Amino acid sequence: MNPLSALIDQLSKLPGIGQKSAQRLAFFLLSLPTSDVKKMASVMVDTKEAIRYCDTCFNISTQQTCYICQDVGRDTKKLCVVAEPRDIFALERTHEYRGLYHVLGGLVSPLDGVHPDSLRVPELVNRIKYQQFDEIILAINPTIEGDATLLYLQEVFKPYTLTLSKLAYGLPAGSDIDYADELTLQRALLGRNKMV
Amino acid sequence: MNPLSALIDQLSKLPGIGQKSAQRLAFFLLSLPTSDVKKMASVMVDTKEAIRYCDTCFNISTQQTCYICQDVGRDTKKLCVVAEPRDIFALERTHEYRGLYHVLGGLVSPLDGVHPDSLRVPELVNRIKYQQFDEIILAINPTIEGDATLLYLQEVFKPYTLTLSKLAYGLPAGSDIDYADELTLQRALLGRNKMV
Repeated sequence: MNPLSALIDQLSKLPGIGQKSAQRLAFFLLSLPTSDVKKMASVMVDTKEAIRYCDTCFNISTQQTCYICQDVGRDTKKLCVVAEPRDIFALERTHEYRGLYHVLGGLVSPLDGVHPDSLRVPELVNRIKYQQFDEIILAINPTIEGDATLLYLQEVFKPYTLTLSKLAYGLPAGSDIDYADELTLQRALLGRNKMV
Repeated sequence: MNPLSALIDQLSKLPGIGQKSAQRLAFFLLSLPTSDVKKMASVMVDTKEAIRYCDTCFNISTQQTCYICQDVGRDTKKLCVVAEPRDIFALERTHEYRGLYHVLGGLVSPLDGVHPDSLRVPELVNRIKYQQFDEIILAINPTIEGDATLLYLQEVFKPYTLTLSKLAYGLPAGSDIDYADELTLQRALLGRNKMV
């Protein structure tokens, strides 16, 4: 029997890794010193076991409160609502936003059985009640599920007097108008900004 | 601090995995049950620790003799010489060859400091001396280093009366003559086969 088949089987479970890539990764792991492979394996298990959700914003964290909620340098008047923790990572990479976050844990999608009550909206409303925010930014994917979630949240926030905003829709940086799909171009036109 | 950074650092050491892919893999690992992550980690370490080289052909193996050298159903009159164990995996996938293998452990490449004496050629010559092979197939990459190795091996095998062959060079299956590079097309012409 192929002595690498168990390893190739495991590696091909990773997203985007087929049999051939898994084999290439397996040979790469064989070429590393045993200590490096042990280190990688232990970081995988340690991270998996250490990660939990932040009690406040539901970001992933190793502690009860995540590093963003703990950060005293953050603008506590701004709250950015996202679907998943990975969206926080993407937004943090921009270095543009310095406020707090709230993770919904998904988007409204009746077809997939995700109804508004399975999202962390009561927790979001609670935060708004007990903490004074100036602005709520809805950083939600421009998809059907995202749009449904935006509509739903708009209703939820109606009783509260606060600025509600959503991310701009339009042309991605470095793109070509010629290649843009109709919906993107339509939204870029509708959202056009005055220059003078 | 980002609680995933250690894991992302480790995963981005894998070939072809950049920061973004590593982050995607990290989130995927978080979504798995802890038992699955532990299983993957332990298979990585166990495989790395169990793998050694076959004493006969230098293929990777968990035992002194690899599963191919142990297989009594193999044609022991044919020997296929390859550069690396991964080449054996590729050839085995074709189900075309049922003989034995010999891994050189590299290709002649003076610029990279790989001289013929750092390859497993003495071991190859020993096998040929003590075991009667009908044919030696050189399955070596059609590159500068591969061609240098072929020339060198041709010299090595001169004193022995056996059939020496190398893989066919030509157009890859499903390719387009129009897109083929000059060298490939030149070799396909030189190696043309009579049809009638």
